[in-house]
Amino acid sequence: MALIVQKYGGTSVGTIARIRTVAERVAKFKMMGHQVVVVLSAMSGETNRLIALAKEIQADPDPRELDVLISTGEQVTIALLTMALKDLGLKAKSYTGAQVRIVTDDAHTKARILSIDEANLRADLDSGHCVVVAGFQGVDENGNITTLGRGGSDTTGVALAAALKADECQIYTDVDGVYTTDPRVVPEARKLDTITFEEMLELASLGSKVLQIRSVEFAGKYKVKLRVLSSFEDSGEGTLITFEEDSMEQPIISGIAFNRDEAKCTLLGVPDKPGVAGLILGAIADANIDVDMIVQNVGHDGTTDFSFSVHRNEFAKAMAVLDGVKAEIGARATSGNDKIAKVSIVGIGMRTHAGVASRMFKALAAENINIQMISTSEIKISVVVEDKYMELAVRTLHHAFELDQAT
Amino acid sequence: MALIVQKYGGTSVGTIARIRTVAERVAKFKMMGHQVVVVLSAMSGETNRLIALAKEIQADPDPRELDVLISTGEQVTIALLTMALKDLGLKAKSYTGAQVRIVTDDAHTKARILSIDEANLRADLDSGHCVVVAGFQGVDENGNITTLGRGGSDTTGVALAAALKADECQIYTDVDGVYTTDPRVVPEARKLDTITFEEMLELASLGSKVLQIRSVEFAGKYKVKLRVLSSFEDSGEGTLITFEEDSMEQPIISGIAFNRDEAKCTLLGVPDKPGVAGLILGAIADANIDVDMIVQNVGHDGTTDFSFSVHRNEFAKAMAVLDGVKAEIGARATSGNDKIAKVSIVGIGMRTHAGVASRMFKALAAENINIQMISTSEIKISVVVEDKYMELAVRTLHHAFELDQAT
Repeated sequence: MALIVQKYGGTSVGTIARIRTVAERVAKFKMMGHQVVVVLSAMSGETNRLIALAKEIQADPDPRELDVLISTGEQVTIALLTMALKDLGLKAKSYTGAQVRIVTDDAHTKARILSIDEANLRADLDSGHCVVVAGFQGVDENGNITTLGRGGSDTTGVALAAALKADECQIYTDVDGVYTTDPRVVPEARKLDTITFEEMLELASLGSKVLQIRSVEFAGKYKVKLRVLSSFEDSGEGTLITFEEDSMEQPIISGIAFNRDEAKCTLLGVPDKPGVAGLILGAIADANIDVDMIVQNVGHDGTTDFSFSVHRNEFAKAMAVLDGVKAEIGARATSGNDKIAKVSIVGIGMRTHAGVASRMFKALAAENINIQMISTSEIKISVVVEDKYMELAVRTLHHAFELDQAT
Repeated sequence: MALIVQKYGGTSVGTIARIRTVAERVAKFKMMGHQVVVVLSAMSGETNRLIALAKEIQADPDPRELDVLISTGEQVTIALLTMALKDLGLKAKSYTGAQVRIVTDDAHTKARILSIDEANLRADLDSGHCVVVAGFQGVDENGNITTLGRGGSDTTGVALAAALKADECQIYTDVDGVYTTDPRVVPEARKLDTITFEEMLELASLGSKVLQIRSVEFAGKYKVKLRVLSSFEDSGEGTLITFEEDSMEQPIISGIAFNRDEAKCTLLGVPDKPGVAGLILGAIADANIDVDMIVQNVGHDGTTDFSFSVHRNEFAKAMAVLDGVKAEIGARATSGNDKIAKVSIVGIGMRTHAGVASRMFKALAAENINIQMISTSEIKISVVVEDKYMELAVRTLHHAFELDQAT
């Protein structure tokens, strides 16, 4: 007998028929003798519908009230699934975040979990109940309803698995596991049986949508065994997120992530002297803009070019800040480009294999894809390329690192 | 400065525009220096939509989970109205039933309020907030979400007014007050400026839809000053529900109620001996059927006919019970009629004026309307007539008792 936490996303509970399918899968695990905790998102589209209602009233909805509003989405699905489980003859009970007592800080719409009182859930499990918990929501210490931000249901699932010391946390989604890259871009993309937490973290932060980065961090911190599975296909073991020490040998590269979310900002002809980078980024930080990659080349003629990337939504704001500091810094000009894409290769094997970067750059050069920026960490290399080359770059690298071959 | 509780029903918050209208009225009261607590229903149609979802999953939805589900309806409206109030620059805060702590018994879908913790609400009011509370819902002592049954939002409003010792509880609805009868049936129906609690109770229990009977009982018990007003017209004082001792002189008849909700069941040729009525009604009660009127005529030839009325939804079930006990009792036959209507005149003045019943029966006889059953209490007389005569009977009585004349 194992204790399993299963998290289902919005598309998995998007219709009455799909809710029944989830109930049948839960019943199957229950029949195998397992204890099951189910964590649910709102029906797909519901959270957006509620946010749209709020915005009809307030352009910038009050955060406390927005949480009261959107937390109803999961409250609907937990009730419906619990009814479906009872209709199958199972014992089942639903819990809102407040009823569990998932205590968070008071940062409405992006709260962080502080503690979980798992006593009632455990008593229900021990008396044979399936426990159905609303994802994405909690309460602060004063009983105000909070939400965890987009993808927060994954975090609820992992946090409950940690609190209950579950044997496994299963994240059911609309794909059947983690792929070497997005199969819509590279048809040869291969499902991975396992991937390490560090790789998953990099992939999540670099644009892979399969798992939310906060839930992966949480799982890593509390050593929760995490598995990504398809909600729509019953076959397959999905992808298990492993701890490095579990694995025998690592492939050099596990996956390729990409996104078009960024834009590049450049100050040209910046005086090449200490303190300038701090001045520029200080002004950007003061405007509450997050910076991703930063590149400064070796100077010549006493000046240099300074580039960084920001989220595309904040491109205009960042360029305005640059125009503002240009004179103060004595830079020659500003330039910006929001027609860029970031392509990243991720793999824990990089640590022990030299030449990964050169293999990457050569493969891109062979296709005449110019690299505009480069950023590296111990287990990933990201490059910025012209927007229109993104898919070609991903396919080229997928082939160059033989990701379509089983390891 | 007064403390006012305002309750708005589903049609009053049925659209974003109407929610804004409610916010503007609340702001007006706030500007006059009053403290305002608002109690809201779900947007019109929402509760039915949620119940329909539940019934797609379970023909007879689990009551605990049904309450988790349908309580989301009011949670949506309290958040939206609070946003609208903030958008007008007011301080405002929403409360679910659980957050107030409106504690009820654990009778899911028809719970009764046991206690209200008003301390937090009062602190918010004292610091200048408008307080917006979800009607219709509470929690039992174990924190399970409960609902109060249809019309429960009225009860929440009155109960909060009692707990906070409010100066007035205003029930905003889609009519501008309590009428002598339904203006759709009698165009000359007149709005009453005042009506006593006892009359309002009778009218509510006899089919008037303006106020829920439980909220009127509650208001009577805790001496809450209750006023019915229009949510759509700003003019007018509505109808004030008074305590009898407040009133100088009472009209003989205040109003006429009617409904087509009932059906008549008769056992013919019942042996006229002690204990038979108990046997019949015992069998009906065992089948969980509520009986309204009961009529037994004087017997002849050692037998009598025994009639009673039940809700039309339970007519078939009641007739089946009668067919079952017929032999045991030695009755000759059963007969039933679900094409009946009940018309009732209500008035506290009846107590001191003789001849009200004969005036009623003569007026009906003059129109050739046959009376099938009669039931009386201290301040009401109800008659059952053939279904098709209902409107005529109401108009006839409205005229006979001069209800179209101002008192």
